[in-house]
Amino acid sequence: MKLPVSTEWVLHCATTLAQLEPGATASAAQLAEYYDLPAPYLAKQLQALVRAGILSATTGPRGGFRLGRPATEITLLAIVEAVDGGTSPYECREIRQRGAGALPPEDCRNTCVLARKMADAHEAWRRSLAEDTLADIIASLPPSAPARTRARMATTGRGPRSGGGS
Amino acid sequence: MKLPVSTEWVLHCATTLAQLEPGATASAAQLAEYYDLPAPYLAKQLQALVRAGILSATTGPRGGFRLGRPATEITLLAIVEAVDGGTSPYECREIRQRGAGALPPEDCRNTCVLARKMADAHEAWRRSLAEDTLADIIASLPPSAPARTRARMATTGRGPRSGGGS
Repeated sequence: MKLPVSTEWVLHCATTLAQLEPGATASAAQLAEYYDLPAPYLAKQLQALVRAGILSATTGPRGGFRLGRPATEITLLAIVEAVDGGTSPYECREIRQRGAGALPPEDCRNTCVLARKMADAHEAWRRSLAEDTLADIIASLPPSAPARTRARMATTGRGPRSGGGS
Repeated sequence: MKLPVSTEWVLHCATTLAQLEPGATASAAQLAEYYDLPAPYLAKQLQALVRAGILSATTGPRGGFRLGRPATEITLLAIVEAVDGGTSPYECREIRQRGAGALPPEDCRNTCVLARKMADAHEAWRRSLAEDTLADIIASLPPSAPARTRARMATTGRGPRSGGGS
């Protein structure tokens, strides 16, 4: 049972974007440089976060990624499921209805107790990850972290793009 | 994030073995026939359960698998981890220490907050699966289930092997 290696990438990139000035963006190339990651593959993962509404992407010379909604409304669960999907790691193929021991269909109207327990565990995992938002993560960092993040980001590519005059 | 397909197999096979008469065994071939599973691959998974102490295997003409300890002492977690290992699905490669944004080592003495939250979620999953033992699962089945299981198992291969005279 393994999450994609990009799970770490997107958790950190979203945390970094949450520390930029409001409206500022960072490109995939900048984020890749910031964490020494392969830019094309990172860009694909960031697009998955855009599809999930976690990030928004703007194009053009000042374009890049920024949070798609407030950091208080982005849970770690949402970020993880954006790149891994939301399905349970346990696959029930109803083997209880197969073979010499097959249960008759009328005994299988309810979900198998083993599948239910596996689903309960997945829900416990999901609830745990839904407890914390990006805002909670930022609040747990040293107070100097956001300023440092912005200063370091300014050394990548063209630096963060300010949000324009709008 | 996917568990091996054999997770369903071993959960059901362990539940079936927990319903046999004390001391009775079933071979991998019988269990494969019982659930219509590929016997050689199932046998490998059952051996993983033996290595974990969940099953014990006896050889010889009356040989086969039975529980390696009481059903009250076998959690679903132990069964799942016997075939999937116990490592967290989240892999932290410390990207916070890489690239243009690299944090200095002295700021990374503690585990990254994101890795901690992912570990918390994995522990929540593990705790959930540790709540139920095979005995609890059997207790949740219809009262007629064990007798039915034993009767059906008797139709496979040579039927269950009674525990000998000891």
